[in-house]
Amino acid sequence: MTKPESISIRFDEHKLEVLDQELLPHQEVWLQIESFEDMISAIKQLKVRGAPLIGVAAALALGKEFLKSADKTEWLEKAEKLRASRPTAVNLMWAVDRMKKAVLKTEATEPKLIWKEAVAIYNEDVELCNIMAQNGSALLSDGDQVLTHCNTGGLATAGVGTALGVIAAAHRQGKKIHVYVDETRPLLQGGRLTTYELEKLGVPYTLICDNMAAMLMAQKKINKVIVGSDRIARNGDFANKIGTYSAAIAAQYHGVEFYVAAPVTTVDLECATGAQIPIEERKESEVKGFGELQWAPKTAQVYNPAFDVTPASLVSAWILDTGVYRKEDFTNDKFLSEVQKKIKGE
Amino acid sequence: MTKPESISIRFDEHKLEVLDQELLPHQEVWLQIESFEDMISAIKQLKVRGAPLIGVAAALALGKEFLKSADKTEWLEKAEKLRASRPTAVNLMWAVDRMKKAVLKTEATEPKLIWKEAVAIYNEDVELCNIMAQNGSALLSDGDQVLTHCNTGGLATAGVGTALGVIAAAHRQGKKIHVYVDETRPLLQGGRLTTYELEKLGVPYTLICDNMAAMLMAQKKINKVIVGSDRIARNGDFANKIGTYSAAIAAQYHGVEFYVAAPVTTVDLECATGAQIPIEERKESEVKGFGELQWAPKTAQVYNPAFDVTPASLVSAWILDTGVYRKEDFTNDKFLSEVQKKIKGE
Repeated sequence: MTKPESISIRFDEHKLEVLDQELLPHQEVWLQIESFEDMISAIKQLKVRGAPLIGVAAALALGKEFLKSADKTEWLEKAEKLRASRPTAVNLMWAVDRMKKAVLKTEATEPKLIWKEAVAIYNEDVELCNIMAQNGSALLSDGDQVLTHCNTGGLATAGVGTALGVIAAAHRQGKKIHVYVDETRPLLQGGRLTTYELEKLGVPYTLICDNMAAMLMAQKKINKVIVGSDRIARNGDFANKIGTYSAAIAAQYHGVEFYVAAPVTTVDLECATGAQIPIEERKESEVKGFGELQWAPKTAQVYNPAFDVTPASLVSAWILDTGVYRKEDFTNDKFLSEVQKKIKGE
Repeated sequence: MTKPESISIRFDEHKLEVLDQELLPHQEVWLQIESFEDMISAIKQLKVRGAPLIGVAAALALGKEFLKSADKTEWLEKAEKLRASRPTAVNLMWAVDRMKKAVLKTEATEPKLIWKEAVAIYNEDVELCNIMAQNGSALLSDGDQVLTHCNTGGLATAGVGTALGVIAAAHRQGKKIHVYVDETRPLLQGGRLTTYELEKLGVPYTLICDNMAAMLMAQKKINKVIVGSDRIARNGDFANKIGTYSAAIAAQYHGVEFYVAAPVTTVDLECATGAQIPIEERKESEVKGFGELQWAPKTAQVYNPAFDVTPASLVSAWILDTGVYRKEDFTNDKFLSEVQKKIKGE
């Protein structure tokens, strides 16, 4: 199977499996993905999640689908359905569009070329995680106490992760880093997944409820924040898991540095500002409880946005695989045209 | 039994019962309190909670204890144990101290006088909730969309509540108020208890996770915040349920009014600033899951402060039973000496 081994997805030409993240941390169960419909349902149920991983997983599912049947018209319909399975993360759209481009220029008699393109997307994600981790780790110092939100590690990417990859790299470099993990209501990706990864990595951490981070900043127990992103607008505003915005406001209030780590394909040049990023709303039961356990009154009205938008003004630096950027870069045409080239694969 | 009927505590000379708040909203079970130990355990397990209610409940348990046995030395030891059952809320200490004062000046042959003192504390709480609701409702306008945190209604006091009492009064006055309810991790007093009360009151509300409030403020869907308090320092800093500080920072960032509602006995003149307020830390399992359901790794390290401190600089107004106050009042000797008189019952 895959080399280097991803902790969240594995495959060869005959088999595609994802780790069922809904069951973590207590059970490690690998889900067989037999079709693109299986992948859509795994993505919608958040069994596969994390903006970069969703892109990679979609590409592999579509590559496999083309191996099964190289009917381009049918395949393009499937690609459209997969592309629409989650609306906020732009990496999914980018990966599907890249697969579409490959399919449109490939002879149906060469399905292996399409599979190769999917594997290339996987390998590139592994590689760019490493570069991001390298770029970002320079911003972390010995003794830092770093807040992170949601899950942005090997469970959110094919490689070592985005924000969590940066933390892991600093830890591997011998810097003493303590991580404060926001549990990240409602789906508890911090409490269930980031804790699971940090235990595996041997990085010391403390789990907190999302509403405790501000108090820790006031006590000077958190001096940096690093999060991932699902979409970055042209002006640097970015969408990320609900609760990111709150953490960013608290960071600014306390003079705490706030970093975003994401692959450059997260930048969406079509979005002028964060206001144009569509925000997925999810079902009420997620807020009324957790899984089977429902603690709110059955009739409770609920609001459940999966993401929020943090304005560029609250960000200290954007850590991309192409480098580390500051606010002024997002108003610089040279930077933006480089992003465009990179996204288009030029 | 009690008139007007409290939704959280009921009693006569022979019987003392509290509504088991751990089982709400799905089950309404009244717990028999047979002794002061029963009350300590109900308080520690948050079956009885809410700073004012804890004070009232402790007074009633101690009054009943004196009816059973008028041995002053034994009674004083019991009072000390009850006084220490939760460290942050000052109302508990105030109520126990008032009962002690009564016991010390009462003949052991007159236990009914001590019971009467406890009932007086109950009745006064009902009355001052009404006054606070009246004082505070003037700050709410037709069309307001108000965020509240934790539970501060009839389940947190003997009467109509503090912050939630204010909201209910404005609603009764015919003002159209929509409430956004922070679920209030880890113990979900918002998701379980405030929702339960608002349904009973017929006040429209939307339940959210704590980390969603900032986004709603950015969307201009929340224009006021109103919370309770467990202890207010001499300078106006105040302790309240964990997450209050985060909401206050977000409110200031968005120019949203932020109010605190509490009985004047919540003011602790011995505390110069919020830094002197002791913060109770609770058990790890509360953050690692909810009740029996534990979603974090068993070995996860956790930080679990039950309260945080919000500085006076983030507060627009303090709604007490003695009136509505602004920042300048907390540096005004006249105001502070009036508070002192009121607390001492002069």
